[in-house]
Amino acid sequence: MSDVYIIGAGETKFGELWERSLRELAVEAGLKAIENAGIFSRDIQVLYGSNSLAGIINGQENIGALISDFSGIAENHIPAIRVEASTASGGAAVRQAGLAIKSGEYDVVMVGGVEKMTDVYGSEIIDLTSSVLDREWEAFFGATPASLAAITARKYMADFGVDKEALAMMSVNDHLNASKNPDAQFKNRISVEQAMGATPVAEPLNLMDCSPVSDGAAAIILASEKYVKKNKIDGIRIASSADAQDYLAVHSRKSLYALDSARIAGKSALEKAHVKLDDISFAELHDSYSIYGLIELEELGFAERGHAKDLVFDDIKLGGRIPVNPSGGLKAKGNPFGATGVGQFVEAYRQLKSKCGERQVKGAKYALLHSMAGTGSMSVVHIVGGE
Amino acid sequence: MSDVYIIGAGETKFGELWERSLRELAVEAGLKAIENAGIFSRDIQVLYGSNSLAGIINGQENIGALISDFSGIAENHIPAIRVEASTASGGAAVRQAGLAIKSGEYDVVMVGGVEKMTDVYGSEIIDLTSSVLDREWEAFFGATPASLAAITARKYMADFGVDKEALAMMSVNDHLNASKNPDAQFKNRISVEQAMGATPVAEPLNLMDCSPVSDGAAAIILASEKYVKKNKIDGIRIASSADAQDYLAVHSRKSLYALDSARIAGKSALEKAHVKLDDISFAELHDSYSIYGLIELEELGFAERGHAKDLVFDDIKLGGRIPVNPSGGLKAKGNPFGATGVGQFVEAYRQLKSKCGERQVKGAKYALLHSMAGTGSMSVVHIVGGE
Repeated sequence: MSDVYIIGAGETKFGELWERSLRELAVEAGLKAIENAGIFSRDIQVLYGSNSLAGIINGQENIGALISDFSGIAENHIPAIRVEASTASGGAAVRQAGLAIKSGEYDVVMVGGVEKMTDVYGSEIIDLTSSVLDREWEAFFGATPASLAAITARKYMADFGVDKEALAMMSVNDHLNASKNPDAQFKNRISVEQAMGATPVAEPLNLMDCSPVSDGAAAIILASEKYVKKNKIDGIRIASSADAQDYLAVHSRKSLYALDSARIAGKSALEKAHVKLDDISFAELHDSYSIYGLIELEELGFAERGHAKDLVFDDIKLGGRIPVNPSGGLKAKGNPFGATGVGQFVEAYRQLKSKCGERQVKGAKYALLHSMAGTGSMSVVHIVGGE
Repeated sequence: MSDVYIIGAGETKFGELWERSLRELAVEAGLKAIENAGIFSRDIQVLYGSNSLAGIINGQENIGALISDFSGIAENHIPAIRVEASTASGGAAVRQAGLAIKSGEYDVVMVGGVEKMTDVYGSEIIDLTSSVLDREWEAFFGATPASLAAITARKYMADFGVDKEALAMMSVNDHLNASKNPDAQFKNRISVEQAMGATPVAEPLNLMDCSPVSDGAAAIILASEKYVKKNKIDGIRIASSADAQDYLAVHSRKSLYALDSARIAGKSALEKAHVKLDDISFAELHDSYSIYGLIELEELGFAERGHAKDLVFDDIKLGGRIPVNPSGGLKAKGNPFGATGVGQFVEAYRQLKSKCGERQVKGAKYALLHSMAGTGSMSVVHIVGGE
């Protein structure tokens, strides 16, 4: 079975890109990835599109076809499908693309994630993004992603004596790193006081605890071991890939703050890669809400339950014991749902190629990437790097 | 590389199922497939969900998680993703599931397709289903799936001297076969006069040329060669799988009636299976509109361009040279988008197991299944059967 390598990566800036359409974003990222890989578009054998909400926001399903057409690869009749696992679509699409290479069917695969979320005005986006929850048993009764994250935060903070400052530190770290990332939505650094004093969204979470509404696209080119060797490409290896599911609705799960899917997928990914947690040079977490960043640190094994608070003041910084979100994370790099998970691979590729300038993780060898669906209904974890 | 086998199949009735929700339909089909396969839900290692429109019709994305949760397999943390390729989602999901088995990662995989389309009132469904077209360059200007099919029909009929009766015969055949299928939406037989004289939809197409708005779900269980042999299961082999893309918008394609994606995927599937067209016992075509049934017969090689009209009066009947849509096809079995392509596999499995009673294709050995996206932006072709 073939190993899988990343041989190119590209992304648009993430942000409020009102002048750019869904297809323009997808095409920009795709072409950047193709150029970065040094291949031709005709070399691509299949396209995996990642998108969560274009049907309900942009009235556009059939996203695979859309990207394929406007990237110019439809003229070669290259097949294109879309993978959707809500906010984990990016990680899930990369995983499927990797399996397709391992099956022996393909040698060169593109994964393109895109989301165009700012075409919707005001509070409507809250209802639309609630489609990643259980519509009939959560959203219908008024639950939103933010309100569910807030309930989780409240219970977690009470049970483990964690104060608001620990949550705020996740966002402070994201903004600091994003200030060094030209593709990030927010490049302003924030103080812990600013993070704690922002406008409430769903208490105890405020504006600085919540990832923004974003437009953006990201793309990577994956290739088989055979292709990489034949063409003498210095690719970055995907050491392992794993995913796991949990109940869709938070009320069905074993506790408000258990992210079982992250725990199981994380453990499985480390085992498959034969890598220890200590070998991980940095992690890109799915901190759509600051509280999830803390819980993920625990479920993925970086801290004991209730003790992520001990990591967030120093260890997660660039240069710390386990740098988290050198890209700026979902809070500050931005969170265009379908592009977010693919963007993690763009960051990992650049970090492991030592191309990250000011935000470079020194001597980076292995990255752990966590892409999570909604409030934790699914997790996809990849370990990237190594020989 | 492992061969892939179908070891179980189940589906709901297709139709206007107002009293059933999206999740209920998915679960019914899934449990029927599990029971039919004689396995336990805990034996399933991954779920591929197929769905096209639940985001915009039902406000529910994250369909993989929804199905997984309510089928009871989330408690085993089995991963679940959704594959979307508009109306070809079903065929595309089966293809991805097959690749996942061939990769060596999984031995037992469920593919579940579901769509709940009748929750939307009146003409709104036309706008929502137009999301499978190019929203900005087709649907925005008023094009709908039916109007684009009508333009194609008009040009095709004029260029090749094909009259309305030939189109009508596709639907007459579908209804005749569906009258023998308990799962079909329409079990009434129609005469050619009835088919030709129905209410116009988009001339020259009338109500009897257009597949209906349907609710329904279908599921199959796929297994690796190793699993089938170890457990001495008499599964049905998937001999090959192929897909191909075309431009998203009809106006970008080389002609109004060229379905290049069908031609390329069909040719590739036959080559991969080492099967000749003459060996195909029956075909399930994607006749969302009667005109596509005729063109598909040509693109897939059963007739020369413009000559499908010579097949539709006798050859496509049960007992004819190449029986088409023994299930009743999209026109009469029904067309719940995400379930349609998976339902073709349910029919193929039952036919090749000789379980189809009155509509049985005698001595069926190979089935050709064609799942098409929208107006032809993508095609997925599978050859099922053989040793």
